[in-house]
Amino acid sequence: MSVYVFGHKSPDTDSVVAALSVADYFGKVTGESYVAAMQGEVTPESKFVLDKFGLTAPQLKTSFAGEKVVLVDHSDLAQSPDDLGSATILGVVDHHKLGDVTTPNPLEMWVWPVGCSCTVVKYMYDYAGIEVPKAIAGAMLCAILSDTVMFKSVTCTPKDKDAAAALAKIAGVTDMMALGMEMFKVKSAVEGASMKDLVFRDYKDFNMSGNKVGIGQLEVVDLSLLDAVKDGLYAEIGKVKAEGRHSVFLLLTDIMKEGSEMLYVSDDASVIEKAFGAKPGDKSVWLDGVMSRKKQVVPNFEKAFA
Amino acid sequence: MSVYVFGHKSPDTDSVVAALSVADYFGKVTGESYVAAMQGEVTPESKFVLDKFGLTAPQLKTSFAGEKVVLVDHSDLAQSPDDLGSATILGVVDHHKLGDVTTPNPLEMWVWPVGCSCTVVKYMYDYAGIEVPKAIAGAMLCAILSDTVMFKSVTCTPKDKDAAAALAKIAGVTDMMALGMEMFKVKSAVEGASMKDLVFRDYKDFNMSGNKVGIGQLEVVDLSLLDAVKDGLYAEIGKVKAEGRHSVFLLLTDIMKEGSEMLYVSDDASVIEKAFGAKPGDKSVWLDGVMSRKKQVVPNFEKAFA
Repeated sequence: MSVYVFGHKSPDTDSVVAALSVADYFGKVTGESYVAAMQGEVTPESKFVLDKFGLTAPQLKTSFAGEKVVLVDHSDLAQSPDDLGSATILGVVDHHKLGDVTTPNPLEMWVWPVGCSCTVVKYMYDYAGIEVPKAIAGAMLCAILSDTVMFKSVTCTPKDKDAAAALAKIAGVTDMMALGMEMFKVKSAVEGASMKDLVFRDYKDFNMSGNKVGIGQLEVVDLSLLDAVKDGLYAEIGKVKAEGRHSVFLLLTDIMKEGSEMLYVSDDASVIEKAFGAKPGDKSVWLDGVMSRKKQVVPNFEKAFA
Repeated sequence: MSVYVFGHKSPDTDSVVAALSVADYFGKVTGESYVAAMQGEVTPESKFVLDKFGLTAPQLKTSFAGEKVVLVDHSDLAQSPDDLGSATILGVVDHHKLGDVTTPNPLEMWVWPVGCSCTVVKYMYDYAGIEVPKAIAGAMLCAILSDTVMFKSVTCTPKDKDAAAALAKIAGVTDMMALGMEMFKVKSAVEGASMKDLVFRDYKDFNMSGNKVGIGQLEVVDLSLLDAVKDGLYAEIGKVKAEGRHSVFLLLTDIMKEGSEMLYVSDDASVIEKAFGAKPGDKSVWLDGVMSRKKQVVPNFEKAFA
């Protein structure tokens, strides 16, 4: 029986590539069958990365009842499959806060406070003395560049930079910043995508003191690229909120200006001022220097909701 | 500000020695101040181990509001300090199931499915290329011998044996089984201890599907050593149950016969048959081959309560 390795509900490049690399790693370490999976379709950015290095996307799969599984890039029930309770969790590889997943059995956890799950995976390979395959190394490099916004995010640590440099060498990438810009241009593209696609491109639900709160993020090389779709995005998060959430926040992050415009629909907008000390406008607020959902947005909202 | 490193509410040798060694490890890795703590008094076994290798016991401390902390040997709220929610958890080092502790911030977790937290700690030292101090190595060896019942427990893995062998070498212990027998004789001693001391010597509360369930364990080299105190122990777990628990179980484990007599007081004794397929007597049941609370008792009860 194979063990499935998968990331959170809205797959981003880190969760897709961590699934591929962790499946490769555990397969080699244990000699057993580990299969990479994902709970949703790949984003344009992830497709670019997979194509660039000739990798096949993880298997699309949303039900894991009765299966053995390894979680990557999350430990929150809200981001896991609905039937996770009927699966046996053998491990977790992550770089986020510790979520509400629990297990009845001992398990293997590699969780570090670094900028990207693939950074943790790189050190796992090193620890076991196993070489990262060339194509997987290139994709892991892209995951680190993506999650750390080319090392600009406050979540970026020296370990991320070291791992990226080592992976670039294995993958034969000589100019990693050029690779990063190429990838972020794909990520910035909004043409042809529906409003729903854009809102859910990198979206997660959180349980904050009993309130269901959705937070999405779109990262672009220039915020003006989103001028034409901003109204549509606002209407779309209104629909998402109406499905039974307390609030939906959508971060429009300008990676060059290093800040985010946050669109919001909320039962109680005062949480925004509590979280960031900034008075929101009718529909949005500019958060200077805020680029990381994980390290800057989620912890502040969790305190504001507490 | 120092970071406190501590284990669960009823300190056993693993949680005491893991606190000491993890504090030493993180202090050396980060260059910052890490202080070992414990939530209760040391057991006779732990006192023997600390004295044997000339170590000072961790600081007794039960409140951690406003402090930075690292948890060892547990990730369950019921086993953590009552004010853990007001502390900042920087890390977890453990070898149990994943409990219900959550964090608002990213953290460092070393959790492996091995027989002892100190086995994980040994590999952390190796990973960082730091030598384990001689006295700490001796105490870590004892923790592994204790948790794996001298390698007899079903929780014991090849990693535990490898770590023990390497630690024995560092500590200059030539006959580790003799050291183990000496330690287990101390652990088996019941003279002078109150019934309450014996019940809580290695005791943990669990939340099982909403029911508070206490499980204690006494390991002896020969069960007949407990004949004189069995009635007293039974009366004592009755008191503990009356404090608002669904059930209290006390495992009297015979490490040479490799099985446990389990005393019980419960609102619903049918969970015992559900968990073990054995019909209990009025006050107790013999569970052949059952030596590990973590791997054999807790998972079976969790299924029975589910």
